[in-house]
Amino acid sequence: MIIVLKPQATEQEAKHILNKIENAGLKPLYMPGVERIVLGALGDERVLQKLHLDSDPLVEEVKPILTKYKMVSREVQAHNSVVRIGNVPVGGDKFAVIAGPCSVESEQQLMSVADVVKGHGAVALRGGAYKPRTSPYDFQGMGVEGLKLLKQASKATGMPTVSEVMEVGQVDSLCEYIDCLQIGARNMQNYGLLKAVGETGKPVLLKRGLSATIEELLLAAEYIYDAGNPNIILCERGIRTFETATRNTLDLNAVAYIKKRSHLPVVVDPSHGTGVRELVIPLSRAAAAVGADGIIVESHLNPAEALSDGHQALTGEMFAQLMQELKPFVEAAGRTL
Amino acid sequence: MIIVLKPQATEQEAKHILNKIENAGLKPLYMPGVERIVLGALGDERVLQKLHLDSDPLVEEVKPILTKYKMVSREVQAHNSVVRIGNVPVGGDKFAVIAGPCSVESEQQLMSVADVVKGHGAVALRGGAYKPRTSPYDFQGMGVEGLKLLKQASKATGMPTVSEVMEVGQVDSLCEYIDCLQIGARNMQNYGLLKAVGETGKPVLLKRGLSATIEELLLAAEYIYDAGNPNIILCERGIRTFETATRNTLDLNAVAYIKKRSHLPVVVDPSHGTGVRELVIPLSRAAAAVGADGIIVESHLNPAEALSDGHQALTGEMFAQLMQELKPFVEAAGRTL
Amino acid sequence: MIIVLKPQATEQEAKHILNKIENAGLKPLYMPGVERIVLGALGDERVLQKLHLDSDPLVEEVKPILTKYKMVSREVQAHNSVVRIGNVPVGGDKFAVIAGPCSVESEQQLMSVADVVKGHGAVALRGGAYKPRTSPYDFQGMGVEGLKLLKQASKATGMPTVSEVMEVGQVDSLCEYIDCLQIGARNMQNYGLLKAVGETGKPVLLKRGLSATIEELLLAAEYIYDAGNPNIILCERGIRTFETATRNTLDLNAVAYIKKRSHLPVVVDPSHGTGVRELVIPLSRAAAAVGADGIIVESHLNPAEALSDGHQALTGEMFAQLMQELKPFVEAAGRTL
Amino acid sequence: MIIVLKPQATEQEAKHILNKIENAGLKPLYMPGVERIVLGALGDERVLQKLHLDSDPLVEEVKPILTKYKMVSREVQAHNSVVRIGNVPVGGDKFAVIAGPCSVESEQQLMSVADVVKGHGAVALRGGAYKPRTSPYDFQGMGVEGLKLLKQASKATGMPTVSEVMEVGQVDSLCEYIDCLQIGARNMQNYGLLKAVGETGKPVLLKRGLSATIEELLLAAEYIYDAGNPNIILCERGIRTFETATRNTLDLNAVAYIKKRSHLPVVVDPSHGTGVRELVIPLSRAAAAVGADGIIVESHLNPAEALSDGHQALTGEMFAQLMQELKPFVEAAGRTL
Repeated sequence: MIIVLKPQATEQEAKHILNKIENAGLKPLYMPGVERIVLGALGDERVLQKLHLDSDPLVEEVKPILTKYKMVSREVQAHNSVVRIGNVPVGGDKFAVIAGPCSVESEQQLMSVADVVKGHGAVALRGGAYKPRTSPYDFQGMGVEGLKLLKQASKATGMPTVSEVMEVGQVDSLCEYIDCLQIGARNMQNYGLLKAVGETGKPVLLKRGLSATIEELLLAAEYIYDAGNPNIILCERGIRTFETATRNTLDLNAVAYIKKRSHLPVVVDPSHGTGVRELVIPLSRAAAAVGADGIIVESHLNPAEALSDGHQALTGEMFAQLMQELKPFVEAAGRTL
Repeated sequence: MIIVLKPQATEQEAKHILNKIENAGLKPLYMPGVERIVLGALGDERVLQKLHLDSDPLVEEVKPILTKYKMVSREVQAHNSVVRIGNVPVGGDKFAVIAGPCSVESEQQLMSVADVVKGHGAVALRGGAYKPRTSPYDFQGMGVEGLKLLKQASKATGMPTVSEVMEVGQVDSLCEYIDCLQIGARNMQNYGLLKAVGETGKPVLLKRGLSATIEELLLAAEYIYDAGNPNIILCERGIRTFETATRNTLDLNAVAYIKKRSHLPVVVDPSHGTGVRELVIPLSRAAAAVGADGIIVESHLNPAEALSDGHQALTGEMFAQLMQELKPFVEAAGRTL
Repeated sequence: MIIVLKPQATEQEAKHILNKIENAGLKPLYMPGVERIVLGALGDERVLQKLHLDSDPLVEEVKPILTKYKMVSREVQAHNSVVRIGNVPVGGDKFAVIAGPCSVESEQQLMSVADVVKGHGAVALRGGAYKPRTSPYDFQGMGVEGLKLLKQASKATGMPTVSEVMEVGQVDSLCEYIDCLQIGARNMQNYGLLKAVGETGKPVLLKRGLSATIEELLLAAEYIYDAGNPNIILCERGIRTFETATRNTLDLNAVAYIKKRSHLPVVVDPSHGTGVRELVIPLSRAAAAVGADGIIVESHLNPAEALSDGHQALTGEMFAQLMQELKPFVEAAGRTL
Repeated sequence: MIIVLKPQATEQEAKHILNKIENAGLKPLYMPGVERIVLGALGDERVLQKLHLDSDPLVEEVKPILTKYKMVSREVQAHNSVVRIGNVPVGGDKFAVIAGPCSVESEQQLMSVADVVKGHGAVALRGGAYKPRTSPYDFQGMGVEGLKLLKQASKATGMPTVSEVMEVGQVDSLCEYIDCLQIGARNMQNYGLLKAVGETGKPVLLKRGLSATIEELLLAAEYIYDAGNPNIILCERGIRTFETATRNTLDLNAVAYIKKRSHLPVVVDPSHGTGVRELVIPLSRAAAAVGADGIIVESHLNPAEALSDGHQALTGEMFAQLMQELKPFVEAAGRTL
């Protein structure tokens, strides 16, 4: 339930009501706004009715939250959340471009691509150290050595970093070396992992599962939020459909839909969303136009020799072209790079 | 096969080679370019080899067409095709906005919405007279009376018209009253209908089937082209996926992919592609950004009373907002409205 | 609405009520049962309420039909429909095996495969004379010559025939030569064609569209029924999904679901449903087990040289094995071959 | 690579070759057969060529493994694997029926349903103690208390148990109380968990992911096998498609396909595969017919009050009917219950 207080209600009075909510065994939410304070109560709604909050003179309105997700809903928070990866805000006026290789492969590979993407305007560095691979015989990532290289690249370039965490046991090392923990598509409903990253308080980039509905994505985010971590960036990265010309079908409907329903920032991954290098630039333009808060793209200075996903990585030259082409669309959307 | 002639080859010499191709039982294509003439030969490629065209002194190169579709491929024609609906070019520097109601319901309804969309910058009028409906008990359209109303609205506003043809038996009336024949998603592989509209020479707006791959869409276009009609506009209108928050999943990957592989113009239908009124504007922006040549949108001055698809139709006010929001993205894409 | 009459109501009294229904502008249905007569009224239900049928002393109960489809629903007819292809009943105690080549290619090819499948227990012969092909450059079928060969094979073997009709213009020739008109998956929502075959009264085998929901399939059948033809056999032939190991995903859930909701017979096409020859036999067994009324399978004595779909056709030897393996499952399902 | 030895080769000679393979940095496989010994070598095949095994006088043939999965492939092991859950073999002549509630809810609930399903012929007991739920606000399972109840029910009925493990941290408790560890659909590509259950050596029931291809399922099994655990039972539980009449689309094509390509046993989950109680029996029949090695079904004596998935659970009476209807189909498939 959402409890809208009257304009004259003070913070102390609000706390008093929150105590009542908590004592009734419900989860209280405190959401101060510019004009009035809004409270939330999550849990068994029949309990709530016994509190008769609607007859409290300080309460203007009590209304249900209609969606299954609660804290990530715009019903609970009308304004956009801005999540900071290191010093980089995602969700505000800036359109964030996060770039880097699919996998960290070596110091030389990482440092050189980090320099290039930074030079062309990327604000954060991505790179996989732990790689979820369909086959046990494929390259599984450099592990903690890769994390250290990301830290080093971050220091050298000033860019904060994003890297995937695959298991609860990796959360601590990720937190030590990395600025934003990525939950990959295969792990979107790995609830133990969602809770674990929820407890860290670190920014989390949560990728949509291959066949996850929008509602399921928002409920996965609710798990992280419910564990105490509001610093969540959602990521549309393409869904699995019958089409085989592209690796996935990038669902930009979902971006527009989520921006209406949730206050969380949303970034788009056109690399996995298309799986085809030559489609990354037009779909990045579309992502800016549809209202996304940024993109996360794969770049490799020598894609032909990449240990994973080489066919969808942008060369340095293509990355430069991407940034140049993006600019007018980002500005048309009322933002800046 | 594609036969590239040397720069000095004349039209007459090209015709001589085309005759050889035709006499061998193959379909000859004549594609004069700015710098040199290119010929095509469609059919059994083993026959072609017997002609030994590669040893003809006027021939520079003989190479296979790698895609299953031939005449609609960029391999056969490198430059963009521009298709004219009445006096409205689609596929060039202008971004075409085609608008109107889902169904023609009455003179008053059609004339009023036509005036409004024209006033805000639409260049062509859409409206269904024959309606393919999932249930036999749903409104099936006004039929030929609807076509006459479209003709009347076209005269009054100066906008050419687009309307769906569902059956071979309707082709003649459509041609009498309408400027561009639409093939609906359900009929994308209705080969008799494809051939029939192919024989008219009229512009055809070919919608992608609900579960058609990009290749199947291009092969459906090939049927129309093969029947003698190059005036084809492709339309991405969303595909059927597991997602239920939106009516379909608009596949903007497909638009970018097709623009790389085919010379035909591509428009996007954000109304069917989302099925949700409030998503039409952001997805229209994205369509402009991804490189589409236009959009086709549903508008109804009183959506709550529409006989079909009211939930996805834009009101007059929203249509005005659409045009205003579209403008900077169309310009960012290097086009004008 | 369904109007259940009291046991004592006579046919003449029922006719009297039917007249009232018809005069009110509704479509009347007469459904005499063993114990009592049931009537139906299709159309605007508000009109029906004005007739106050529920206060008629002969009426026991008036209740709405809850599904969008009406006449094909089990709510309207509780017992199974049996549709006869020539002298072959489909939908009763016999499990019908319809077999033959994908395309009719020559007299020799057709006659030899017809003899073989007949010898092993097939009861009807399938074969395509008009072929819907994704590419205009693929083999398009023998046309009316193919139909004549099917007629000839039918006379020689005594098996009735099933062949696809793709266009309204082909309906007459099909009716002349063929016993059961097949509507292919691509044409499931070709409403002009549905109405045309509905008007013939001939048995129709209606294939589910590649991405058609079960409800859409039943509504397509409703079009045929509504045009006056109750002789409809539904066919589950696989739907399009993300899986690429098989050509389609055979949806046996749909068969069980339809048998609960509709009185129409349902056959399964394991050839298109799998697209893999070695999977045809196990899925045919499963079709019998799940409650299907028969199967329609492709067989070719020399699949390697088939002009279409050779990879999914059973050889003569495999067809014999199919019939042998099917038998115990058909019997376990309480039927006979 | 697969290395087929000549009939006269001894175990000791085989070991000698295996040493060579291991010393070259490849993973050796020892697969003694009835007539001859077969060896395997997994890893970089270029290294293998340098060993020149094909010129070894004891080697009859060296051939590549064509699939991405290796140890779970029939190319490596031609005969069916039989996996034992407690004393219950899965994969042999018996068709295994595993039954029980979705969630363990109380001692009374579990014991009563266990008695009933045992009485009608179930051979193993399923029940969830840790429940992966889309929403954090849904019932999350009884946890270790639930595991203890399962152990108690196992002792009382003699049935071994199957229960889901969601996180690496739960593996130990599961191993303490439960006979077979289930990996749920959402965790099919949770590689840390796959490796952890792989290291236990306990039987694992691996469910196919909602949008996992068959190949991805087999590669997930390969992770478990590669970690040292060959006791894997695959489970087809329906895939996510556009169809909404059923919760998922049960893919029986996949069962037949896997039985051709892999030696692992495959069971079918008709409860999740349909999501509709009344479809569970016909699809169980189909599962037996298509060649599955068993089924795993949900049963609840009072489905209306189940804390999860009540709409798809069989009542005790329906479970009795399931067993009765299954019998002739299991026997037609040459097996026994």
